[in-house]
Amino acid sequence: MKFVIIGGDAAGMSAASRAKRIDPHLEVIVLEQTMDVSYSACGMPYNIGDPQRDIEELVVRRAEVFRSKQGIDLRTGWRAEGIDPAAGVVSGTDHQGKRFEQPYDRLLIATGASAVRPDLPGFDLPGVMVLKSLDQGRRIKNFLQSRRVRRAVIVGMGYVALEMCENLRALGIEVDMVKPRPVFLPWMPEEMSRVVLEEVHANGARTHAGHEITAVETTGDGLKVRCRDLSLEADMVLVAVGVRPNSAIAEAAGLDLSVGRAIAVDRGLHTSDDNIFAAGDCADAFHVVSGERVWIPLALRANRAGWAVADNVCGRRTELDGVAGTAVFKVFGLQVARTGLTADEARRAGFDPVAVVIKTRSRAHAHPGSTPIWNHMVADVKSGRLLGMQMVGREGVAHRINAPAVALHAGMTVAQFAQCDLAYAPPFGPTWDPMLTTANQLLKKL
Amino acid sequence: MKFVIIGGDAAGMSAASRAKRIDPHLEVIVLEQTMDVSYSACGMPYNIGDPQRDIEELVVRRAEVFRSKQGIDLRTGWRAEGIDPAAGVVSGTDHQGKRFEQPYDRLLIATGASAVRPDLPGFDLPGVMVLKSLDQGRRIKNFLQSRRVRRAVIVGMGYVALEMCENLRALGIEVDMVKPRPVFLPWMPEEMSRVVLEEVHANGARTHAGHEITAVETTGDGLKVRCRDLSLEADMVLVAVGVRPNSAIAEAAGLDLSVGRAIAVDRGLHTSDDNIFAAGDCADAFHVVSGERVWIPLALRANRAGWAVADNVCGRRTELDGVAGTAVFKVFGLQVARTGLTADEARRAGFDPVAVVIKTRSRAHAHPGSTPIWNHMVADVKSGRLLGMQMVGREGVAHRINAPAVALHAGMTVAQFAQCDLAYAPPFGPTWDPMLTTANQLLKKL
Repeated sequence: MKFVIIGGDAAGMSAASRAKRIDPHLEVIVLEQTMDVSYSACGMPYNIGDPQRDIEELVVRRAEVFRSKQGIDLRTGWRAEGIDPAAGVVSGTDHQGKRFEQPYDRLLIATGASAVRPDLPGFDLPGVMVLKSLDQGRRIKNFLQSRRVRRAVIVGMGYVALEMCENLRALGIEVDMVKPRPVFLPWMPEEMSRVVLEEVHANGARTHAGHEITAVETTGDGLKVRCRDLSLEADMVLVAVGVRPNSAIAEAAGLDLSVGRAIAVDRGLHTSDDNIFAAGDCADAFHVVSGERVWIPLALRANRAGWAVADNVCGRRTELDGVAGTAVFKVFGLQVARTGLTADEARRAGFDPVAVVIKTRSRAHAHPGSTPIWNHMVADVKSGRLLGMQMVGREGVAHRINAPAVALHAGMTVAQFAQCDLAYAPPFGPTWDPMLTTANQLLKKL
Repeated sequence: MKFVIIGGDAAGMSAASRAKRIDPHLEVIVLEQTMDVSYSACGMPYNIGDPQRDIEELVVRRAEVFRSKQGIDLRTGWRAEGIDPAAGVVSGTDHQGKRFEQPYDRLLIATGASAVRPDLPGFDLPGVMVLKSLDQGRRIKNFLQSRRVRRAVIVGMGYVALEMCENLRALGIEVDMVKPRPVFLPWMPEEMSRVVLEEVHANGARTHAGHEITAVETTGDGLKVRCRDLSLEADMVLVAVGVRPNSAIAEAAGLDLSVGRAIAVDRGLHTSDDNIFAAGDCADAFHVVSGERVWIPLALRANRAGWAVADNVCGRRTELDGVAGTAVFKVFGLQVARTGLTADEARRAGFDPVAVVIKTRSRAHAHPGSTPIWNHMVADVKSGRLLGMQMVGREGVAHRINAPAVALHAGMTVAQFAQCDLAYAPPFGPTWDPMLTTANQLLKKL
């Protein structure tokens, strides 16, 4: 049986490796349009910010290893351009520029997502960068090493923008961040997003929210980001305004798309065609809290979905529970984490949300070095169910968020979560963990 | 109604405060034999290790505050000596040495636990210390400040012993640890306990496991801990071989005792007498995994039980889910955490346990500063249920353990836990969180 995979990144290579482990006789063919497979995409901002590290260190496993040690027919430089589901054939252009037609018995579309470049004048100028693929990471790192970049403008204020802000500041580069919408981290309560914003400012970056960008222009030896009422000069512009799923090939093949134009898949990662799966950033998923289809492109679920596809291809029937939208990112000295639904998302999903924001401490009473932790918890009034949590703090946030994430998978009420026996020692937290204190406060509103 | 509480520490004062908040008209009388109420007992080792901090900083709330701001009739220096359940009276000796008889409608026994002092020659000598009450903490801190303590022997190698070891080393004191049983941290797989032991040795403390202690003797100006085949000189001896519940007053009143001679209570914290509750270190609890009665004296459950008693006294019917035995402690640069059952405990509780030990990394591939995390996970072969987890590492352990703790409360299988959407960012962990990698490995054995 031929198992063909379009795309050799997280989901694709996870599927290929696992399929070969389960069934060494399976013919596994991966068509990857770039020369890069299996790299730490999320590690790119930190590598870019560290001149001592080679960007090639981000490669987790080289193509040769997949070929020689794992027996995967990995074809780099092969670009899939069309799928004929009736014939069971993928066609495209190979590494030598020739047309190919590749038959499949089972197909996985793992084409990922691409960074959005606004369709505005000057966004294609040299020095205007996006960051999603390793090649884009190389380009940024090269640019920083070959030019004297003293000032950068980052368009966008999401997590990639903030990670790049921290890492450009680490290189001593002046950073201005700009975005059209007026609210910084709009999914977070204002009293918490303000803490993150202050951290950005305390580390010498400037933010300009609520400024619509109209163009990027060249100046004498640099660039200028033009907004209606603002103009920012820079040696480099990083555009980090989000990503969109690479679903055009699936759409052209007649497969159903879903939220955010991601490829619609069921819990077994099947698309609307029985022989075609989709996984990773190009596909949607079910949210464990709302049960609704969502498109939250993150690394873990791509790997997990790749594995599940391999299981299903190899006859081990597997379904995924779905995603909770758990995420964490670092903003200079802060850890920012979330899981589940915001109050707005909960309302849109038909819940009747109630929420609290609580400031707690990171260590026990009288233990030195304690810093604040801000906690936001959302519940459903009708059922008492825990719907989501967000945390911000200097320590003890990144891994704490996993506890409410598990509670969301279990469908726990806030009352049940408040009963959990969580760990306590003075260097690591108060007797009542911040999450329990928050749950106890939220219970008063339920 | 008179609500009388014996013991003014975590459980007792939690109950008193909450009862007064719920019902300001309730007469709440607390009989506390010492002059100390509401202090951070778990913070004592760290305070003792820091000469800059006054030990009185550990007091969370002073007696006057409970009296004047909260209206609690808090009687410090009052020693309860007997309970007459038929008459509904507590008798004892008050702060002036006079007999008292205090009637009650509802009684809470929150007498805590006491440090065990082996019944061996010399364990009552000056310079031989235990650490459970604040007064014992004061005595140790005073001793360290008034004498020139260059060498200490710690009898015991549990978490209090290890915390004290770290803090005595911070004061530049030579430390020998000694215990009769041969295995260091016997509840932990050997490959993990060895990591902790190496950390103790790397920080200059010596350990002597498997040496039965026969006596403490005075030497010229110091002490000598005598074992059958070993003799250790010291300026101070700390005995940290565990605690036992202060349940004699309950036993004498005819109340049922349970595991470890703790006072037996139901999920509503009622003893075998309808009008008498027990909570905190003197009482037992139900284990959420085994359903069995256990005695795991830890701070959070004492506070939580105190609240639950107040709720029940005030007519808000409350039952507690029980404990998972979640605990974390710091051993120099290591975080050591556990939740749920060990394989041995699981076997004794009637499960058919299977387990793995996995070494993972604390940060993403190629992210600098990564250190190992050791993970141990236990499951039941028959049901696939997650039974327990242990972790050791330099970072990312203390708060991660809360995720499997929540899973234990939810009764999750390992397969369900392995599906959880946990947080990922390169500075904080690998794409597959160490706990998920461990669950995935354990699944192969199920």
